[in-house]
Amino acid sequence: MTRGTILSVDAMGGDHAPGVIVDGVAVFVRERPDTRILLFGDEAALTPLVAAHTGLSDRCEIIHCDHKITSDMKPSQALRRGKGSSMWNALEAVKEGRANASVSAGNTGALMAISMLVLRKMDGVHRPAMTAMWPTLAGRSVVLDVGANVEADAAQLVSFAIMGEAYARATLGKERPTIGLLNIGSEEMKGHDEVREAHEILRTSGLDLDYRGFVEGDDISMGAVDVVVTDGFTGNVALKTGEGVARMLGTRVREALMKNLSTKAGAVLAASGLKQLREQMNPSNANGGVLLGLGGVSVKSHGGTDAQGFATACRLAADLATSHYPEEVAANLARIQKKGAAAG
Amino acid sequence: MTRGTILSVDAMGGDHAPGVIVDGVAVFVRERPDTRILLFGDEAALTPLVAAHTGLSDRCEIIHCDHKITSDMKPSQALRRGKGSSMWNALEAVKEGRANASVSAGNTGALMAISMLVLRKMDGVHRPAMTAMWPTLAGRSVVLDVGANVEADAAQLVSFAIMGEAYARATLGKERPTIGLLNIGSEEMKGHDEVREAHEILRTSGLDLDYRGFVEGDDISMGAVDVVVTDGFTGNVALKTGEGVARMLGTRVREALMKNLSTKAGAVLAASGLKQLREQMNPSNANGGVLLGLGGVSVKSHGGTDAQGFATACRLAADLATSHYPEEVAANLARIQKKGAAAG
Repeated sequence: MTRGTILSVDAMGGDHAPGVIVDGVAVFVRERPDTRILLFGDEAALTPLVAAHTGLSDRCEIIHCDHKITSDMKPSQALRRGKGSSMWNALEAVKEGRANASVSAGNTGALMAISMLVLRKMDGVHRPAMTAMWPTLAGRSVVLDVGANVEADAAQLVSFAIMGEAYARATLGKERPTIGLLNIGSEEMKGHDEVREAHEILRTSGLDLDYRGFVEGDDISMGAVDVVVTDGFTGNVALKTGEGVARMLGTRVREALMKNLSTKAGAVLAASGLKQLREQMNPSNANGGVLLGLGGVSVKSHGGTDAQGFATACRLAADLATSHYPEEVAANLARIQKKGAAAG
Repeated sequence: MTRGTILSVDAMGGDHAPGVIVDGVAVFVRERPDTRILLFGDEAALTPLVAAHTGLSDRCEIIHCDHKITSDMKPSQALRRGKGSSMWNALEAVKEGRANASVSAGNTGALMAISMLVLRKMDGVHRPAMTAMWPTLAGRSVVLDVGANVEADAAQLVSFAIMGEAYARATLGKERPTIGLLNIGSEEMKGHDEVREAHEILRTSGLDLDYRGFVEGDDISMGAVDVVVTDGFTGNVALKTGEGVARMLGTRVREALMKNLSTKAGAVLAASGLKQLREQMNPSNANGGVLLGLGGVSVKSHGGTDAQGFATACRLAADLATSHYPEEVAANLARIQKKGAAAG
């Protein structure tokens, strides 16, 4: 085997595991000839799945694990019983330097808990944050935190901005991502203490960041900034609310096109445009959340993803693993600690 | 003039005032023969606008005000300089019993501030809450608070649930509206202290409410419950995020239908369905936020509304003014105070 990026993959996590996971890995390694995969899971199930893809077995080492984290396990149970599971062992491979990054489509709460335990926190980071890739009119934006924490004080919001910026540079291909702080309302009473204090720190602390100030909820989908920073409660509600609105409108558009013979014929003629739209809005193209602020890369794929979506999550993991993300975050965290702003 | 509901209308507030306001009033009074309007604003401007609608001058009394609240005024300026403005005087008409409810499309922050000053808070309510009507797959739901406050403790969330429920009964035509508390995440670490405490109060306090427990962001657009309760920061972010997603998807659908000759022809054939969709999603049909918890009804119309949208806001005001909303809220607030749960 040649050198290059090595991903450790939890083959047993997600609604359609392990089939979709192996298919996704196959898509990914075809695109990236310099990558290898450590595939954690049930060897008997995985061997024929890997063999079904020509050439995959040369790029992919199956590492047997005799149990897995189920979707109904609570984080505390996962911590107690998770040792030796495919999820846990995939993360340990990153910890021990056998892999550069890990990907799982399994139980989110369990993945966050085990990732934090196994990979530990990055120096200077008090709370990790979960990212989401958000499709916008301008392309894609990073939103964080979308649920790793329920609250965030000003210093934590500032560290989310620092981590989100380096992450956006690594994954969006932008040299200098812009940052906004999610807020509400009128000029006079802009948000609560935490966001106002974080705003002041970001504005004045001499961080190497392109901070653009406050943004509101409708700015996210407009792509007003590349990185939207908020606490985990607000971010999770925003993300799920946006998903709900998109789902409702999708249903309404389908209903509208099935209304009568004329609209059905119209839908047939418009099919190429509608297909392109579905492609643009396809969650597979934005799949992969990362728990930022750990001592290693742990990517969470959507549990219900298809093979293309899982490949997207692998791409994200590889991009992050080969980026300067950790050094950039460390440099900005050091800057802010020097200023005594207690960002860590 | 006959008896019936009397609305006081700020004719000078909003992007297209006073023309659209008078047109909207004309639509409304045609539908509701038992209503009259007190129209506050510049008499010279309003007289010809009213005269242009046959029969409107019989239903509508113009009350001259020599100034107005502008859209760029801060709430504190509006409080200092607002006396005698069309917005202020419309609210005073409610306070003094000359009107049953007030409607304005003017400056939101100013309207909230002046409404609170003029109408005062309802007994037992510490913080008023702003509502939004949210289009869902099941019809419409009420979301509150969408920005009257930046934070809410457990007792305030409970009072929002009480007010929102009575409001939904008055305006959605449901005998027994269902209520959910907006939250995030896994079973184990459900949200922050405030929502968990509010959940316990709502579950156990013997209020006359159909409380269904926690809902997540994606449940809003599904219409999982009739009333979604949250703090003003989260609610405002959710509302604006949803608007942003809807706007982005609208743009993407238009682009998809303009892709080539075939899709354009398809769009023509699908026009009847797409028109129905636009109608369903038309913000005019859900226009009108109410600041609940005051000693009188103050309805906020969207500033950029058209005449149909302003008529919708008038309808909301009239429905609320003729409902049992204040008695129902008072009864539930009394129940919870008796239980010592400090909901007020």
